[in-house]
Amino acid sequence: VKRKKISELATAYSNTEDPLVRSRVEDQLRQSLQPSYYWLFQKIGALPGGVKFLVDFRAQLISFCLSNLEIERTSALKSMSSQLKQLLSHWFSVGFLDLDQITWDSPCSMLQKISDYEAVHPMRNWTDLKARVGPYRRCFVYTHKSMPGEPIVVLHVALTEEIPESISKVVKHHRMVKKYSVDSHQSSGSKTGREGEDPSSCEAAIFYSITSTQTGLQGIELGTQLIKQAVQKLKEELPDLNQFCTLSPIPGFRKWLLILLQTAKRDGKTLAQTDLLTIDEAEKWQGLIKMAGNLQESDLGLGTLIQLVKTNSWMEDQNLIAFLEQPLMRLCARYLYLEKRRSNALDSVANFHLRNGAVLWRLNWEGDRSVRGLTNSCGIMVNYKYVLDDLEPNSTNYQENHKVKASEQVIHLASQAKVLQRKLSL
Amino acid sequence: VKRKKISELATAYSNTEDPLVRSRVEDQLRQSLQPSYYWLFQKIGALPGGVKFLVDFRAQLISFCLSNLEIERTSALKSMSSQLKQLLSHWFSVGFLDLDQITWDSPCSMLQKISDYEAVHPMRNWTDLKARVGPYRRCFVYTHKSMPGEPIVVLHVALTEEIPESISKVVKHHRMVKKYSVDSHQSSGSKTGREGEDPSSCEAAIFYSITSTQTGLQGIELGTQLIKQAVQKLKEELPDLNQFCTLSPIPGFRKWLLILLQTAKRDGKTLAQTDLLTIDEAEKWQGLIKMAGNLQESDLGLGTLIQLVKTNSWMEDQNLIAFLEQPLMRLCARYLYLEKRRSNALDSVANFHLRNGAVLWRLNWEGDRSVRGLTNSCGIMVNYKYVLDDLEPNSTNYQENHKVKASEQVIHLASQAKVLQRKLSL
Amino acid sequence: VKRKKISELATAYSNTEDPLVRSRVEDQLRQSLQPSYYWLFQKIGALPGGVKFLVDFRAQLISFCLSNLEIERTSALKSMSSQLKQLLSHWFSVGFLDLDQITWDSPCSMLQKISDYEAVHPMRNWTDLKARVGPYRRCFVYTHKSMPGEPIVVLHVALTEEIPESISKVVKHHRMVKKYSVDSHQSSGSKTGREGEDPSSCEAAIFYSITSTQTGLQGIELGTQLIKQAVQKLKEELPDLNQFCTLSPIPGFRKWLLILLQTAKRDGKTLAQTDLLTIDEAEKWQGLIKMAGNLQESDLGLGTLIQLVKTNSWMEDQNLIAFLEQPLMRLCARYLYLEKRRSNALDSVANFHLRNGAVLWRLNWEGDRSVRGLTNSCGIMVNYKYVLDDLEPNSTNYQENHKVKASEQVIHLASQAKVLQRKLSL
Amino acid sequence: VKRKKISELATAYSNTEDPLVRSRVEDQLRQSLQPSYYWLFQKIGALPGGVKFLVDFRAQLISFCLSNLEIERTSALKSMSSQLKQLLSHWFSVGFLDLDQITWDSPCSMLQKISDYEAVHPMRNWTDLKARVGPYRRCFVYTHKSMPGEPIVVLHVALTEEIPESISKVVKHHRMVKKYSVDSHQSSGSKTGREGEDPSSCEAAIFYSITSTQTGLQGIELGTQLIKQAVQKLKEELPDLNQFCTLSPIPGFRKWLLILLQTAKRDGKTLAQTDLLTIDEAEKWQGLIKMAGNLQESDLGLGTLIQLVKTNSWMEDQNLIAFLEQPLMRLCARYLYLEKRRSNALDSVANFHLRNGAVLWRLNWEGDRSVRGLTNSCGIMVNYKYVLDDLEPNSTNYQENHKVKASEQVIHLASQAKVLQRKLSL
Repeated sequence: VKRKKISELATAYSNTEDPLVRSRVEDQLRQSLQPSYYWLFQKIGALPGGVKFLVDFRAQLISFCLSNLEIERTSALKSMSSQLKQLLSHWFSVGFLDLDQITWDSPCSMLQKISDYEAVHPMRNWTDLKARVGPYRRCFVYTHKSMPGEPIVVLHVALTEEIPESISKVVKHHRMVKKYSVDSHQSSGSKTGREGEDPSSCEAAIFYSITSTQTGLQGIELGTQLIKQAVQKLKEELPDLNQFCTLSPIPGFRKWLLILLQTAKRDGKTLAQTDLLTIDEAEKWQGLIKMAGNLQESDLGLGTLIQLVKTNSWMEDQNLIAFLEQPLMRLCARYLYLEKRRSNALDSVANFHLRNGAVLWRLNWEGDRSVRGLTNSCGIMVNYKYVLDDLEPNSTNYQENHKVKASEQVIHLASQAKVLQRKLSL
Repeated sequence: VKRKKISELATAYSNTEDPLVRSRVEDQLRQSLQPSYYWLFQKIGALPGGVKFLVDFRAQLISFCLSNLEIERTSALKSMSSQLKQLLSHWFSVGFLDLDQITWDSPCSMLQKISDYEAVHPMRNWTDLKARVGPYRRCFVYTHKSMPGEPIVVLHVALTEEIPESISKVVKHHRMVKKYSVDSHQSSGSKTGREGEDPSSCEAAIFYSITSTQTGLQGIELGTQLIKQAVQKLKEELPDLNQFCTLSPIPGFRKWLLILLQTAKRDGKTLAQTDLLTIDEAEKWQGLIKMAGNLQESDLGLGTLIQLVKTNSWMEDQNLIAFLEQPLMRLCARYLYLEKRRSNALDSVANFHLRNGAVLWRLNWEGDRSVRGLTNSCGIMVNYKYVLDDLEPNSTNYQENHKVKASEQVIHLASQAKVLQRKLSL
Repeated sequence: VKRKKISELATAYSNTEDPLVRSRVEDQLRQSLQPSYYWLFQKIGALPGGVKFLVDFRAQLISFCLSNLEIERTSALKSMSSQLKQLLSHWFSVGFLDLDQITWDSPCSMLQKISDYEAVHPMRNWTDLKARVGPYRRCFVYTHKSMPGEPIVVLHVALTEEIPESISKVVKHHRMVKKYSVDSHQSSGSKTGREGEDPSSCEAAIFYSITSTQTGLQGIELGTQLIKQAVQKLKEELPDLNQFCTLSPIPGFRKWLLILLQTAKRDGKTLAQTDLLTIDEAEKWQGLIKMAGNLQESDLGLGTLIQLVKTNSWMEDQNLIAFLEQPLMRLCARYLYLEKRRSNALDSVANFHLRNGAVLWRLNWEGDRSVRGLTNSCGIMVNYKYVLDDLEPNSTNYQENHKVKASEQVIHLASQAKVLQRKLSL
Repeated sequence: VKRKKISELATAYSNTEDPLVRSRVEDQLRQSLQPSYYWLFQKIGALPGGVKFLVDFRAQLISFCLSNLEIERTSALKSMSSQLKQLLSHWFSVGFLDLDQITWDSPCSMLQKISDYEAVHPMRNWTDLKARVGPYRRCFVYTHKSMPGEPIVVLHVALTEEIPESISKVVKHHRMVKKYSVDSHQSSGSKTGREGEDPSSCEAAIFYSITSTQTGLQGIELGTQLIKQAVQKLKEELPDLNQFCTLSPIPGFRKWLLILLQTAKRDGKTLAQTDLLTIDEAEKWQGLIKMAGNLQESDLGLGTLIQLVKTNSWMEDQNLIAFLEQPLMRLCARYLYLEKRRSNALDSVANFHLRNGAVLWRLNWEGDRSVRGLTNSCGIMVNYKYVLDDLEPNSTNYQENHKVKASEQVIHLASQAKVLQRKLSL
């Protein structure tokens, strides 16, 4: 029935040139295109607990659509999810979110949730958690009136003397801080996170973990705002702080790399014939794995490389580590800086920070040697630098011109990768 | 350009039957129909003070459209106002409004605003204001995170022993209450409004004033919700309270009456020939005004009636008052119960309460003898009764079937008016 | 019975030299000297509302003792009042008082109380009150957990460009400020008192009114602490502020002056024979009042002077005003700087500020031309200056050595008065 | 010097009979007996952090006096501690303490402190802690303005269906509750402790742990008030709750018992010759330990009993447990009900609850089988019952007439013990 109405209006629209009529038909079309459940959602949202219900409902929609691939079935649900997203985006507009700083004086229930939600660098226990809200640490969350006690987005910040190369440095610093924490605790029983800190050793603020907790709010970008508000808060508290930087994972690198390697293998190429290694490197690789007794004659090292990367076992051999640093760093620069999907960075985390206007600043070899780090990105981590005055132009440039702002290190590595690619395409 | 896009999509929609294609085109249409300023408004709303700015902006749009009657100029602005209204309706959804009870312990700035905004029964001074938040009085407001310290809607309630017939009774009760207030103040220095009250004399809650303060939120119905939440709060505080009723003005009655009278005059009718007075009444009227030396021969009393109603001067003559009670009450019942605009009650206040599901309960002769009251409605006031369990069905019945639920008194008066109308149309 | 116990202990104490025994007897004496109602008061204080009850009870004790002069009756009550004072001084220790800044956003009930309690410069209406908590004004109060909503001490501060000479200048500035207030109100609907202020024109903070509201806390000095905390708060808010000064009444001057004059009259002296006027002045006075036809031959002007001062009528004659400035200012300096009671300044307000360590800084002729001002001090007002670093030494010097720190103006005037006194005593 | 003054005043007091003079001398004596540090303490208390400093200072005084037994050295310090106690008792008067209910939404820092301070039944981890503030549990604390974030006294309450006999039952119930907690957490993310509770199974409120955290407040009884306020709060929340009862340790029982046993041994008595066992029991005991091969001929079982009690090893043998129940319960009743120190119950916990007016209600064999429980009281625990209307008379009766209100069970056991004592003394 409603489709008929839309159809009539569409026809009417096509058949007139009168702007006043058009304007009226536009209004009617707009109204008719609003699905009836839209009004229902609005009603539900006005009930106590209704907003939370809709957020959870959308999370279920999304998960259902992901696990059901028949387009006929899911297209209506996707449309519903998209309508719901629009409604939720109004309700979760920045002005309705409360920025809270979480400290050891925050409610236990809140801290427990922050611990439960932490996906990037999980916490082992309450001592660990206490350290993450203690001296030289800041933890910011967004909360929302409609979901009391629930952290919507969580951002962890470390205050350091210099931009760290590896997450374990942040963790080590952690331990040092724990000592501080204990001391200051005993001497003064202080309440703010600042106690026991030496402001002069707070040169850089490192965003080392950011988590959106609500699947139902997918696509509504709150993390960007949280980072910006956190930067502002930190500037107010520590006016001398002037470096803002992430220490970020590269979730898709190893997966992307393995696809390249396996495609090459399927195509019957040798390593030297790919754009992944230089000819010199390919030869050196053969020597290395021959020594290690690993060479499978048939593929001249490609299969072995796949195997080693897949199992993360190259990390057990210092020679392999030393050799792989250059090619993997180069390929990672290519992955982050050159690989695109619909003109955006292929890597989702990269895309997030670049859209915010951050600079692709430094790749860190052995940045995260945990199993998680190796499986994500062969242990490489990356710093995205937030230079406040440049965020706006960078962001526009990235979104409109698809230009990525990167440091010399990254550009240099990526250009080496490009040479190999070009060589191949000749 | 965009119209071209819409036009193309409209054509495409008309030309296909495939549901999947339709669904996709619908999405695209929806997107294209969203005017570009919609996104701008969203951006503004996310800025500090942005929501308040948009509310004020819409107030300006509305006032501009009211004072500019050329449709070409205002149609785009009206459309903008309507889009803005939709956005604001999301942001001012009930879940985002805070219900506050205002007492003498509330901020002075808030109380001053409540005094400034009070349009229905203006306050003369702070003693008056103190009485309105004191014993036997409740004052509820909605506030909104984005407009701190601003009462969005204000509802004044009086707790009385019986449903009052006139606003001055509420005011007299006021004075009595002021005495209470002083006593309780001196004896206990109490903080809550309840002190000094005798719960057993709180039989009825009278909503004697409700004000929406933001022109920019016109069309977004918040008053209904405020009344409902207030009823709930009052039930919690005083479980024995079981009558909820307004004492309301009838803002359009006299204006409507004068139009009827003047049309009759223009048409050269005598009073006896109209459906306003019975023939007996018309005769009696002539006698009355002859006695008073007021009769203009030419119109047999119609002109004099118009003059007296226009100037409110009939209130100065007890005979006129006594005579006019019956016809004016009958006409007022006709105005409220029978007169419609697009199937709704013609009177805006009546429409508001009937849509909420209230009962048109009692007309009160000399309910408000102030100039304001006479000018609105020849001094008549009306009680709308809120019977909790009936609100939902009444509201549906009114909105869908255009049935008004009224008391016997009102129905009786209106049926007398109907007889006169019918007589005339024969 | 108890007296017997004390007597025994007293004898025991006198009869021993053993320090251990003495120490034990001291403890017992201390215990026995504690009157039984002391424990009762403690019990009462622990009950809800108990502290407030005891404060009011002490107020009644004080008022009863003032109106009953028979020492036998009141000595026990005075002792009780003094015990109660000690207990209350523990409960109203500074750490238990909350410093609140009162603004237009504070509860109406609090603002009303502040208005009611204001004794120094009474407020006429709510507009006046709003101005006193508006821009260029600060209002601080102490509140106490046991008396919620009750301002214990109230301090009014004006922020000015220079130290004002008269209270009406503060009031005029008031009017100017009211304009500001309106403007800032309309433009921004701001919440803090600071809006609409130009910090660069806040050079001096003038304490123009301080009121202790609880008679029952008489003798427990809270005003001093409130001033000190207010200074600290103001320094935090306006770091450039560096002058802190009162504009104070001189409540006892005229009364003291009239006693001197009347004594002289009773002693049959002429004005020239007193130490109040110089011989030249006395002659000039005779001339002046002869001109005005006021001279009573018998007393050569003394009776007329008494009469004029008593009725404040000298204020109506410019010649008298001009003539009296010098002698009254000189006598006022003598009153404030030289007159003592038990080594303290005779004037209670002077004693309060000098004990706080303030400087007796400037006498202001025609500082307060209101009836109140004339009746207190022939219209003279005085500034006490609070120089933060000097407060401690000044205070000690005043309390231990009875030295008053005063400005050159005051010392000069007082030395002239001294010359007259000495002349007389020769 | 001051002693001279006191001495003079004491002499003056002894030598006069005039009540007015006496009264004046009393005032002077009172003043002179106030040591000079009393004023210093008052000054310190007015400084920020001063009260906390004095509490800690008194804690050090107490600990120093405990570890230094020379009376000459400590008498002055004891006097100082006593003066300080008086001052602190004013500042920590009930009206100045805030009653807070601690839940999982309370600050982590507060919950950590509660966990750290818990001495009676230590917590193993955060899950344990969460259970203690979760469903069927209440945790109340007193806090004080001068020591923010510090729990002064902590009271743990369990809501149960019947009065539990053993602490492990409370713990088992704990586990059951944990399940509830998890369920309710997942289903509703509720905030209050009440969620997931069935009010109808809350028949009794068990005070199973009360801890005063500040040594410096020793002798200032805050626990009593906390229990009373907690009872009031619980009655408000659960009006049907009507049993209030402790499950308390008996800290001094085993120590007292061992002294009795060792004295008997030193005196060369046999068990049968003591008033600890009946002759039958003594014989049976010999048989039992003979069987176990434990008998030392020399003392006919006394030494073995001492040994077993000292090492808690009797708990490993069911026969010994079964045998010892009767004599140990009897002796424990004697310890709690009959043994006195200065007319008060010898056991400090008993004395606390009896002074509050509670009833010595039930001894529970194997109430606490933990090492702690065995070492305190051979595993016996005791319930003190708080019958609200009887508290006042019971308390007075205990404090003035030294009468202990006990249940039949306790009286019966104690009378058996008395028979043995009497037999011996014949």
